[in-house]
Amino acid sequence: MNFVSIIEQRRDGGVHSPEGLTFLANGAADGSIPAYQLSAWLMAAYLNPLTLDETADLTRAMAESGETLDLAGLPKPWVDKHSTGGVGDKSTLVAMPVLAACGLTMVKMSGRGLGLTGGTIDKLSSVDGLRLSLSPAEMVAQAREIGIVLTGQSTELAPADKALYELRDVTGTVTSIPLIASSILCKKLAGGAEFITFDVKCGSGGLVHCLYSAQELAYWLQEIGDRLGLKVTAKISDMSQPLGGASGNDLEVQEAQMVLYGDSLDPAQARFSEFARRLCAHTLAFALNIHEDEARGQVDAVLSDGRAAAKWEQWLTAQGAAPGRVPPKPAPVVLDLLAERDFWLVRQDAAEIGRAVLELGGGRKTKEDRIDPRVGVCVHRPVGSRFSEGEPFATIHAADEDAAARAAKSLQAAIEFSNEPVAEAPLFLSP
Amino acid sequence: MNFVSIIEQRRDGGVHSPEGLTFLANGAADGSIPAYQLSAWLMAAYLNPLTLDETADLTRAMAESGETLDLAGLPKPWVDKHSTGGVGDKSTLVAMPVLAACGLTMVKMSGRGLGLTGGTIDKLSSVDGLRLSLSPAEMVAQAREIGIVLTGQSTELAPADKALYELRDVTGTVTSIPLIASSILCKKLAGGAEFITFDVKCGSGGLVHCLYSAQELAYWLQEIGDRLGLKVTAKISDMSQPLGGASGNDLEVQEAQMVLYGDSLDPAQARFSEFARRLCAHTLAFALNIHEDEARGQVDAVLSDGRAAAKWEQWLTAQGAAPGRVPPKPAPVVLDLLAERDFWLVRQDAAEIGRAVLELGGGRKTKEDRIDPRVGVCVHRPVGSRFSEGEPFATIHAADEDAAARAAKSLQAAIEFSNEPVAEAPLFLSP
Repeated sequence: MNFVSIIEQRRDGGVHSPEGLTFLANGAADGSIPAYQLSAWLMAAYLNPLTLDETADLTRAMAESGETLDLAGLPKPWVDKHSTGGVGDKSTLVAMPVLAACGLTMVKMSGRGLGLTGGTIDKLSSVDGLRLSLSPAEMVAQAREIGIVLTGQSTELAPADKALYELRDVTGTVTSIPLIASSILCKKLAGGAEFITFDVKCGSGGLVHCLYSAQELAYWLQEIGDRLGLKVTAKISDMSQPLGGASGNDLEVQEAQMVLYGDSLDPAQARFSEFARRLCAHTLAFALNIHEDEARGQVDAVLSDGRAAAKWEQWLTAQGAAPGRVPPKPAPVVLDLLAERDFWLVRQDAAEIGRAVLELGGGRKTKEDRIDPRVGVCVHRPVGSRFSEGEPFATIHAADEDAAARAAKSLQAAIEFSNEPVAEAPLFLSP
Repeated sequence: MNFVSIIEQRRDGGVHSPEGLTFLANGAADGSIPAYQLSAWLMAAYLNPLTLDETADLTRAMAESGETLDLAGLPKPWVDKHSTGGVGDKSTLVAMPVLAACGLTMVKMSGRGLGLTGGTIDKLSSVDGLRLSLSPAEMVAQAREIGIVLTGQSTELAPADKALYELRDVTGTVTSIPLIASSILCKKLAGGAEFITFDVKCGSGGLVHCLYSAQELAYWLQEIGDRLGLKVTAKISDMSQPLGGASGNDLEVQEAQMVLYGDSLDPAQARFSEFARRLCAHTLAFALNIHEDEARGQVDAVLSDGRAAAKWEQWLTAQGAAPGRVPPKPAPVVLDLLAERDFWLVRQDAAEIGRAVLELGGGRKTKEDRIDPRVGVCVHRPVGSRFSEGEPFATIHAADEDAAARAAKSLQAAIEFSNEPVAEAPLFLSP
């Protein structure tokens, strides 16, 4: 087969055969198709998007371009929870142990973050000793033993996706729904899960910024999942403000632990707790085919009786962390930003806060950047809340005074106040 | 400047600034923009074509990405004649010495052929001793001395075009009018000519296959030439059948010499002779601003009194060939295909004959292929001609019997006969 004819087919709005897409995926995985040809195809696919059927074929081909996990013999249901990425989104850290404590087998591969949105792997990298690159065999063994495992993206699973994803990032072909959907789903297919909850983040801090695009992506994930025999449910959630209080790697691990260990929470943290509980309940109801109220009862129970926290500790210990609750990694400089008068909070923009975290050193501008796990930004109440003069509306955790001062300046543009009451933002934008 | 933002601008149908296109051309020329990014841009430019103004800016930027020839001081007018490429198109070999003999300064860079259409450089490579890679300084010196010079594409002139052209060939982005027009014109601009005649070939054996596309390309060449201060004229000519009799490198040199030396010609060769004379007359009239009939008189005169042939010999000798007429390089096997009955010739398809020449070893399927100068296919009469039983309608020149037999088989599909009279095809499809 000649790849130029496949490029021309895409360019001219033709329809790829499953064999053509398998040729593409295998050629991307083993490097036999040069990057300059893959990127021409990617741009053609961006401008002449793949159909649902083609996208399903591409997804399967990418999943089959490397190893696949065989979960046979593990207790069912096998469940994965995936977020399209957002600022302050640490819900995987809560959902994994909560759902495992409820009896689901949780097997997950996560990515590193790039740009505004942090990756779960980056957040967990702030836990000393934690091993985050497990082999397929290690994953299956750990899932069998304790029902929960998470690893960074393996080069052995879906290598075609890795090649295409890296190219998309540098060729202006990231924001294509079929390419996004196939990239997400091929890893799920290779990872072996049967039930998957997608949390499609919508807003300035997410991959898609408007409700229409979020609905489209949710629809594509479900339709392609159907075609591949996966049981997929997708929720759309607000990403106009950070999810919860903390944005920054160790800060987010600590906030997740506050929820898992039942600490008292400020209003922003409480918003995250409610989000995580609802997402877990939705997933549990979907995987067990029970009513969501019943599922919520189980989720609240494992959080209040310590089983979720125990599963969290068991999970991290199994992957090499020291036993017990993960200790915080305080930043050298902590700076509160105080309300100069009474006001209602109108806007605390997720993208701009994400950018401030990035500037503080908490994210990655290029793949080579090193992350400082200690730094980040905490907000304390969600949009719509009232502040009185002198109350802190945000706290900056920085490596030094200069960085803190720069972040304080950036946050001025990110946060907006009003003298009039303002409505709260909903947690979810879909039923 | 960040090239991803330029890719995104093209992808989203934006308008490039001259500075953006200069950044692109310089980055392509010096290799600082990686091929995978250039090819994403090329596909975006294929699907969201550049405007005339953008194309003119790109053309100028590519011309300025390397050295440019300075013809100052040479006798004016400085003229170039360019064909978009066709099967059996050896008209440059006649036009160059004819127009130089008429007093024009002919300075030309030519390309190698790839695929069906032979390149002038490949045809001239069959002349022993001829040097076809001259430096810019050598070109100007030779043009000053004898008014005629031709070289292969120099890596010093328009290196951006070389990088983009090589990528287009392997990324399905060849057939884009703005990319074609800018690629052609940037070399003209760098080469210093002021008057340029374009011969846009239209038909199965050419770059464009329908009259609409040919008219569009002719329009773009003229419009962009205008914007760059070049004096451009464009003719559209038939490429549904080979131009003249011979297709194949040495065979075409020999046919060009037959016209230059005034030999007697078969009807297919005579069609080529008439074509070349009309193209020369058109160019001469355009460059000297005289009536085409007067120009035709001058062209016929230099062909009949030996001045064109003398200029040809002077030209080749200046570039290293032995003095005198170029001797033929006979192929080991020569096979006539004979009419099995009386008929009129309906079709002798340029593309399929070109493909047969390629299979015989007379062309290049990949850039690394070596060409056999001896092989090719000759047809003897144009479409619309009558043949009697036993007359040869085509002659195969091959390296061995097997290759000749395979070519004979291919030609069966290329050539079609009728019992009814058939109209001749026009030489030109534009006024």
